[in-house]
Amino acid sequence: MKSVQEQMAVISRGAVEVLVVSELEEKLAQSIKTGVPLKIKAGFDPTAPDLHLGHTVLIQKLKQFQDLGHEVNFLIGDFTGMIGDPSGKSETRKALTREQVLLNAETYKEQVFKILDPARTKVVFNSSWMGPMSAAGLIALASRYTVARMFERDDFHKRFTGQLPIAIHEFLYPLVQGYDSVALQADVELGGTDQKFNLLVGRELQKQEGQRPQSVLTMPLLEGLDGVNKMSKSLGNYIGITEPAKEIYGKVMSISDELMIRYYELLSDADLNALQQVKDGVAGVSDGRHPMESKKALARELVARFHGEEAAEQAAAEFVQMFKQKEIPDDVAEIPFVASEPIWVCRLLTEVGLVASNGEARRLIQQGGVKLDGEKITDADLEISPSGEVVLQAGKRRFARVIFRSA
Amino acid sequence: MKSVQEQMAVISRGAVEVLVVSELEEKLAQSIKTGVPLKIKAGFDPTAPDLHLGHTVLIQKLKQFQDLGHEVNFLIGDFTGMIGDPSGKSETRKALTREQVLLNAETYKEQVFKILDPARTKVVFNSSWMGPMSAAGLIALASRYTVARMFERDDFHKRFTGQLPIAIHEFLYPLVQGYDSVALQADVELGGTDQKFNLLVGRELQKQEGQRPQSVLTMPLLEGLDGVNKMSKSLGNYIGITEPAKEIYGKVMSISDELMIRYYELLSDADLNALQQVKDGVAGVSDGRHPMESKKALARELVARFHGEEAAEQAAAEFVQMFKQKEIPDDVAEIPFVASEPIWVCRLLTEVGLVASNGEARRLIQQGGVKLDGEKITDADLEISPSGEVVLQAGKRRFARVIFRSA
Repeated sequence: MKSVQEQMAVISRGAVEVLVVSELEEKLAQSIKTGVPLKIKAGFDPTAPDLHLGHTVLIQKLKQFQDLGHEVNFLIGDFTGMIGDPSGKSETRKALTREQVLLNAETYKEQVFKILDPARTKVVFNSSWMGPMSAAGLIALASRYTVARMFERDDFHKRFTGQLPIAIHEFLYPLVQGYDSVALQADVELGGTDQKFNLLVGRELQKQEGQRPQSVLTMPLLEGLDGVNKMSKSLGNYIGITEPAKEIYGKVMSISDELMIRYYELLSDADLNALQQVKDGVAGVSDGRHPMESKKALARELVARFHGEEAAEQAAAEFVQMFKQKEIPDDVAEIPFVASEPIWVCRLLTEVGLVASNGEARRLIQQGGVKLDGEKITDADLEISPSGEVVLQAGKRRFARVIFRSA
Repeated sequence: MKSVQEQMAVISRGAVEVLVVSELEEKLAQSIKTGVPLKIKAGFDPTAPDLHLGHTVLIQKLKQFQDLGHEVNFLIGDFTGMIGDPSGKSETRKALTREQVLLNAETYKEQVFKILDPARTKVVFNSSWMGPMSAAGLIALASRYTVARMFERDDFHKRFTGQLPIAIHEFLYPLVQGYDSVALQADVELGGTDQKFNLLVGRELQKQEGQRPQSVLTMPLLEGLDGVNKMSKSLGNYIGITEPAKEIYGKVMSISDELMIRYYELLSDADLNALQQVKDGVAGVSDGRHPMESKKALARELVARFHGEEAAEQAAAEFVQMFKQKEIPDDVAEIPFVASEPIWVCRLLTEVGLVASNGEARRLIQQGGVKLDGEKITDADLEISPSGEVVLQAGKRRFARVIFRSA
């Protein structure tokens, strides 16, 4: 097993907060001494089994714990999922049947076992201890926390002061999540930064039960392809882990250099030394790795993770081939471009600096001297949708890869 | 069965609020038509089976419903009593064992069946439906109410704004009480004015379950012997229903005429006509009943209720005898006197107008001309504790019954 210091370096990578560091170091030291792995817990909602890279930030961290020799408990919160929200006020929480939950769990496993080692992962359902709990048991649990403490949770506070309804049972969910840690006797719980309050409830309930309180590790929410907003399906800025290899590869190649560093940090298996080389390359430090090389390596790693090595190799080859066919050099300058509405091609050519004026752009197009993603443009009034990226070519040698950002 | 109007007159007697009057009238009309009695519910705490007259206000109202032919459900809230308050913050709620609850229930029955007809009273325990409820069931129940609605309850609001802790499970108790009405399919629930919020929760939950919402009847908190504060053991201003016959009789005889009217209204079986005569007597209307006669009748009725007719007759005779022995006339003027500390006997004699000055009082005492409750006073420096009442006599014919009030 690695030393406490080495383990802490891996664990802290990309994390927002570790609470309490000294306690976690103590647990690690004890684990090294006794050979007993730590129990790592992370909870997942049973309603959304179609994962994107944003969801895998936590799973990647679980894998790191696993690689360090610890025991991962992948907790599916089916208890509350099966209750749903009978108040009917929230569209997001519909009661799931036992069958749906089990089906979702299978889909989950299929996906997360592309990252985690199935042999060293315990998949647990909180219905197994919450299901048999009586109303009296829940009342006893509820007596352990005050209303004022609940309002310390940011969203509750905001909704209350904003006069938006909070149903009473919403106060019970953090207690159920906290009790899950008691039931599992978790040593560490991971969650997004938005989970911090709930993770701390777990600590307190464990203390009250005479258990050693779990350490809490919060991970950031992953930015989407635009580099600004949180990755989410509804914003369309995501990479789904079941997307075709070519799509994943292309989307990773489209991100900015800064975002690439972030994805390396949070998603890659590359070790801390390799991560430093990526950062150095983007910063222009000599001995750093060339950003284009780093990006290709990341794209390959992620495709390989979800589709295997062969598919990754093929996606890489296809990507190169596509650029060759289109006679686009593979080190074209990247130009981020903020736009929320379709933009006139002549204006775009001018603004990214490929031509001096809209008039020059129009003439060049009419002469057949402008290409969009390797295809000649004939319509000088063309409007371009600002999504993903495009490669523009003006004349023989002037290229720009335009990466669109939403405003 | 009596008409709707006649029943409403009995039901409304002494009540603070009836919600909603038109609904209750409709229920009564239907009950008359179908011959099906209404289900009347009142809940009692299983922790305090040693009742005083304050507790019997509700029970008296239940008796009136019973006399009107309706079905009384005497609900013992043993479910929450058996949970207690594991937060340890409240000394008042300690978890009771099943045995204690059953023992308390027996003591309860012994006491309330002095008022209610056992044959027409259902004693129910809410543990019979709350015990089998699962944590999931309670969460579903909790989802039906919002935090903001809970804060409409006065005491929650005050505690929250006063930064006093409210444990989460305290928000669940009103829901449990409300659910009791659903489980019983109650038509009417009675409670003290402090229970109004909880009674209305019952209405809402019944509506949500598709039941006809219960009517709500709130009764006032009974004033204690001082006529000001709520009757309570801790204030010492109570008449316990297990006190000896002589004590009960004497205490009733000691109350003011105004308080007597109140006790008649809330505690007596005397009908509405008789009640009017008592009021007229105190108001000095001709044909009214003499207040002393009314008071004796009330004392007799209450002693008979808890100790039987014979004991009542004996207590009445002893009371008369005692006054005769002490040569105290039985229509001595009552003088309320506010004091919170022991008072010098000479000052008291002066202030109630039996003598002209403290000096005269001192001389009269030294001459053996002052009696306290029929006993000659010899010490002119005596201090009198301001509790209950005393009869003072100055000379042969001047009497005053001093009734102490706390400031």
